[in-house]
Formats: sequence, C-alpha cells, structure tokens
Amino acid sequence: MSDRIVASYLIETCYPLEQAAAAMAGEQSSGTFRTMPGETPELMARYGARVDAIEPLGEVEQPSLPYARGPKQGGSPRPQQARVTISWSFENTGASLATLWSTTLGNLFELHHFSGLKLLSLQLPDAFAAAYPGPQFAVEGTRQVTGVHGRPLVGTIIKPSVGLTPDATAELVDRMVGAGLDFIKDDELMGDPPHSPFAERFEKVMTVIDRHADRTGRKAMYAANISGDLDAMRRQLDMMERRGGTCAMLVLNSVGLSGVIEIRKHSRVVLHGHRAGWGVYDRSPILGMSYLAYQKFWRLAGVDHLHVNGLQNKFCEPDESVLASARECLTPMFAEKPCTVMPVFSSAQSAVQAGDTFRQLGSDDLIFCAGGGIIGHPDGAEAGVRSIHEAFDAARQGIPAEVYAEDHPALKAALASFG
Amino acid sequence: MSDRIVASYLIETCYPLEQAAAAMAGEQSSGTFRTMPGETPELMARYGARVDAIEPLGEVEQPSLPYARGPKQGGSPRPQQARVTISWSFENTGASLATLWSTTLGNLFELHHFSGLKLLSLQLPDAFAAAYPGPQFAVEGTRQVTGVHGRPLVGTIIKPSVGLTPDATAELVDRMVGAGLDFIKDDELMGDPPHSPFAERFEKVMTVIDRHADRTGRKAMYAANISGDLDAMRRQLDMMERRGGTCAMLVLNSVGLSGVIEIRKHSRVVLHGHRAGWGVYDRSPILGMSYLAYQKFWRLAGVDHLHVNGLQNKFCEPDESVLASARECLTPMFAEKPCTVMPVFSSAQSAVQAGDTFRQLGSDDLIFCAGGGIIGHPDGAEAGVRSIHEAFDAARQGIPAEVYAEDHPALKAALASFG
Repeated sequence: MSDRIVASYLIETCYPLEQAAAAMAGEQSSGTFRTMPGETPELMARYGARVDAIEPLGEVEQPSLPYARGPKQGGSPRPQQARVTISWSFENTGASLATLWSTTLGNLFELHHFSGLKLLSLQLPDAFAAAYPGPQFAVEGTRQVTGVHGRPLVGTIIKPSVGLTPDATAELVDRMVGAGLDFIKDDELMGDPPHSPFAERFEKVMTVIDRHADRTGRKAMYAANISGDLDAMRRQLDMMERRGGTCAMLVLNSVGLSGVIEIRKHSRVVLHGHRAGWGVYDRSPILGMSYLAYQKFWRLAGVDHLHVNGLQNKFCEPDESVLASARECLTPMFAEKPCTVMPVFSSAQSAVQAGDTFRQLGSDDLIFCAGGGIIGHPDGAEAGVRSIHEAFDAARQGIPAEVYAEDHPALKAALASFG
Repeated sequence: MSDRIVASYLIETCYPLEQAAAAMAGEQSSGTFRTMPGETPELMARYGARVDAIEPLGEVEQPSLPYARGPKQGGSPRPQQARVTISWSFENTGASLATLWSTTLGNLFELHHFSGLKLLSLQLPDAFAAAYPGPQFAVEGTRQVTGVHGRPLVGTIIKPSVGLTPDATAELVDRMVGAGLDFIKDDELMGDPPHSPFAERFEKVMTVIDRHADRTGRKAMYAANISGDLDAMRRQLDMMERRGGTCAMLVLNSVGLSGVIEIRKHSRVVLHGHRAGWGVYDRSPILGMSYLAYQKFWRLAGVDHLHVNGLQNKFCEPDESVLASARECLTPMFAEKPCTVMPVFSSAQSAVQAGDTFRQLGSDDLIFCAGGGIIGHPDGAEAGVRSIHEAFDAARQGIPAEVYAEDHPALKAALASFG
C-alpha cells in the first residue's frame, strides 16, 4: 500500500487535460491560482498534489453542467471527458477523515475549468487504518448478536414511516418478528417526534422482541434511528445498552462524519448506516462522488452495515451499480484491517430478487429488507418471510427459483404475486 | 409563521405533475409505493406530506439526469419542469435538524420519477428556533470581538494552504496582520497534519497576533480550522479559550450537522462556517439543494459566519447567486430569533470587487477575504489592504472607485493591477 492518498476522478473540461488536472492539483494543495510567497519549489515537490495519470475518454456534444469556462486560448470548442488520478502526501492531511474530505472533494466541484467532476475511487495509506476504529461488529458480530448463520438476514422497515404511535409500532413489530424476521428498522423519517417519542417506542418494541426471543431463542435486531443531536444520541445509546438493544441506526449524511465517529466511540451496539440523501452525491453521472469512494469514509468511521439499494429497485440506480456497491462493502480496505461491513439491500424487494442478489454477490453476508414483499404476500407475512428464505435456499443449492417453487408453496405464491 | 415545514423544489419528470408531486409526498411521509396496513385515512390526513402548489415551468428537450422512468401510461414523451411546494406537519419531525434533513432531502433524489430534483427553499416553524441555539456571536459579536465597527472586516486565507511550518505560518500572519488585516483564516485543507500540528501553529500565530494587538489595540481574529474528530475539536476549543483565541473554523460538510451542533454547545468563540464541498449540492441547476435552504441548517446549528463565494470569482458561481446567498445570511429566519450571520466573500477578490459587493449587498456587515489582491498589490500588502478599505469607503460615500482613486494611490494601483 502506497503512503500516498490516491483519488481518481471523472472530469469534463474545455481546457487541455494537463492544464485541467494541474488546476485540480493546485487548488487542492497550494490553493490559489497565483504563485504565493512561500510556495517554493521544495514545498511544492513535497506537498503539492501530483497528477499521476490522465486517461482521455473523448469529446461530448455539450457541457454537462453550466458556467464552466475554457482557457483564453488553446481550449477545445467541445468539452472532453477524462479519468484523472491525483495523489497527495500523507503529510498534507495526517490521519484525519475531515481533512481527507476537504482534500479529495473540497472546492473541486466549483472550479471554473469543469463542466463535470466526480470522485470515482479513493485509496488510503495504512495510517488511516491505525487512526480510526472501523466497524466494531461488522459481518461476524452481526451474526453473533442475531444468531443467524449460513444465510442472509431477512428484515423489514417499519411502515408507515411516520404517524404510528409507539403501541401501533410495537404491534406491527410483533406481527413482523412473529412472521420470522431477523431484523427490523425504523424508517429514516422516524426519529424522536412528539407522536412517537424514541424512549417510549424503543421500550415497547423491545418488550415485544424479548417476548419472541424467549420463545425462539433468537433475538431480532431492532435498528432504532438515533440520528440527531449528540446529547440525545448518547442518551439513546445508553438506554439501548441498559435495555438490551442491539443496533442503532445513523443517517450518515445528516449526522455527519464527526458525529458518526463520536458515536462509534461510545457505542456497544451494532451501527446501521443509512445513506438517505445519497442521491445528491451519485444521481448525476458527472457530479459528486461514487459509492466506491463514499463508503470508505463511513467504514473507517466505524459503521457495521451500509445501505446499497436493491436489485430492480423502485429508485433510479441500475443493478450493476447496486452490485458494485455491495461487493465493495465486502472487499477489505486494508490488509491488516479489512473494515468490511454488511451490505443492506432494500427498496421494493421480494423473493423475486433474492436469488439474483445471492448469485451476483457471491455471498450471503447481507441483510435483505422487504416490506410489501413480505406483508403483501398473498398467504400472509409469515409466508412472505418464508418465500425469501426459500429463494435464497434455492440459489445456494443452484436450483432455479421456479423449479424450487414447485414444492415450496410460499415461494411459488411470491413469484406469482411479485414477479 | 405556519406550524408546518414548507419546502419548495424544482423538479423534472415525465409523469403528470400531480402524480410526481404525490410520489414525493408519499416517499417522504408514508415511505412506500404500496398502501400498508396501518396507513389509515386519519393517519394520512395528519402525517401525510401535503402538496401545496405546483407551478409548471414547461418542457425540456431531454432528461437532465439519466435513469428516470415515466409512468406505464399517460406520461409525457418529453420531461416537464415544475416548481412544487410540499409541506409537513411539525409532528412528523419534532424539532430535529437531522430528521428535517431526512424529510426534506432523504430519498427524493433517487425516485425513478425524476430526471431532476432540487430543494430550492425551506420555511421552518418557530419550534425549531426554540430548540436550537443559533449563532452565539453573529454580526454584532464579531464586531465586538474584533473592534471593527462601521465597515466590513477585511481578511485573508493563509497560503500556501499546505506545507508551511508553524514558524513560516506565523511569519506570514505577522506580515498580513502588520499590513492591517482584521481577520486571518486557515485554508480548509489545513487541519492538524504532521508538518503543522494544530497546537504549535495556533500558539505561534496567537503570539504574533497578541504582539500586534498590544500595538494597535485591536486583536485580529484567527479562524483556526479545528474540523476533525470531536475529541480533538473540543481539545482545540479549550486551547483557544485558554490562549485567548477568538474564532474556530468548521468545514460544515465534513464535520456534519451533529458535530457542528455539539461544538456550538461547547464553544465560547466565534464559529466560522466553511462550505468546502458545497459544489456537490449546487453545481447542477437541477440536482441537490440551493444555498437558500442549505444555510438555514447551519444558522440554526449555530455558526456565526458563512462563506458565500465572491463577485467575479475564480469558480463557476454567477454573481447573482453569490449576492442572493449573502443577502439571505443577513435576512432574519424567525421574528424572535433572526439567526443572521456574517457572509464571507472570498475567491480571487481585490479592491476591484469591493465597491460592487457593498452596493449590491446594501450592507457592510460582511467579511471580505483577499489573497493575491492583497499580497500581490504592486506597493505591497499594506497598500493591498488599504486599497480594499478605500474601495469600500468610496462605495459608502457613493463615489465611483475610479474617481476616489485619483487621490488614493493604493486604490489606484489596485484598480490598475487587478481590474
């Protein structure tokens, strides 16, 4: 592993590519367009960002984003796209995720040279692994806490997202855990509102979960959404520990990096990372940051689960992007400290997508969340859960779902209903 | 002020506009495409997001973003744009900025209905003002701490951003404060790296600042970048208080909401909000969030200064956008709690833009940062600072800069050199 921070970007510019890449490197190390006193050749050699590679990708018809400007002379009339790799000395940032964020993202998106700029990938020196804790539970810890081995965890999201009282929420959880689910989570819209105060909701849900655990010997995991101000989050974590809760959900983009890092320090429960707002970063192919870069910040910060959308989802993301994200969650970040996390599939999922999810990911280290695909099963929620297990069983045994469905009626009904 | 949260969006869709707006409201309140058990008409009436207005803006040639899908039937072959206003009961979120973030941004960007979606504006019920502290110092406090009244604060950013030792940084600060500056800040790339440890840099810079304060009776404000993990930020704040520091800089997008809120609770110094990474939100006209919405989160969280770019900047932002941002910083958020903050102008600024900045903003409650425009002044840094003051003086007196420059040689040289 290099001792440099290495980032690659997709860019679009009317500047000659070398000049555009040099502007990126300049802005993100010396920080101005004009040579400043003190900006000696020695300083630039040691601390200047370095352009390691430029791979031209061809011209486009017109600028993807407005307001970019070309050079006064020597520019191209039509923008060119390219993949540019830039690296920095670790001395520039130290092992700080906040400074890494400013360095690899920062002002780059606003430079007038670019009608498009997106961070595609990020490689970090081992010093980051030494400085940050990474996941406390990760895949194995999640399996131990839930008692689920050798198969994916199957879960659901409490819906309607808002409006249920704590009692109504507990009733719904009763029904869903009763149907055999391993995992239940709050919607990201449900925090600590007047109509469902966190403490009351949490207590009532845990009472239900404990009752089922007494019966089954396995305790369903409840990812309760603590995302909020730090005092409240710490109080809620304490409550969880006292009450035997096993998982806290964090909306990464609203809590933010330093908040997530702080919670990881205080937490003795699994941290479920939700990416609500993620579309801001990745919805445009030519602006923002890819999930391959994004998830590295949060894995180092210490979450155990990360959302990756689902195959054939209700959103815009193509399946290959979902799979690339999920595979990356299970790919070690550092040799000594893999920081692998459990990918969470959700969004219009049912038994229909389960087999492909397993086959394409090549692993059952995942959480598979379905809502309508469980509660909307024609034979009820229990059959809905069973249909998903059966779809994974079929895939694991290499049997097509339709064949396996012949003597598995829950799966058969699910394929007919949701296929 | 309504007791509802009101947000307006620019959308682009091939769905009939009513259907598209309903999908937004549904996703951000009930949260699924399918009616769920428990989603009663009573619950929906009370907690469902409400579409308050739809203003069609016409068709566009082709989708701005890929992967959107139209309805199976009844859709438009070409996408339409519209301005949509949606509101939520305060009961949905309670006074939580994190839940507000999930509610007004959240999954919206990923909905398959949209080939473009941007949050344009946000109105909040007074309960948010009651729950969050807002700025501790704001404009008046910044003036008291710096002793600068009746004119803008003039400042600079330490450059080169990376690579200077603490001694070299202090030398540069000596020169710049000696030249008459009110305000100095770290670059957002400079945190607590091995080559310039925060504690050593801060101590050396403060020694220089104190020496000048003894001479002039006014203490220049040093916005030292503490952005990082919370333990370190709290340690650095303590150091500041002990040592007589007056300002901490926070990179909002890397520290995040809960971190900034937490720091505001512990801080007794001015908080300088830097928006590095802002381009992710606003670089596209059809994706993300406008500054008019964005800055409300941070003002409530409690920063005292907010960056707004500068007129004729080196980046992509048009002047009207810069001015709208700056005006919004000075516009009260709530009748009882204005939360107004000082806008910070920077990026390729010099005496050339000062007059227009004052005239267009209609206020001198601002911080005006220049680098090359000061240090690159042909008669030296002191003349650079003087030229900016002279440009503001001229504007305040309603005299064209070129006329005023006739008997103000520093301004004259600046206009000739940077104009």
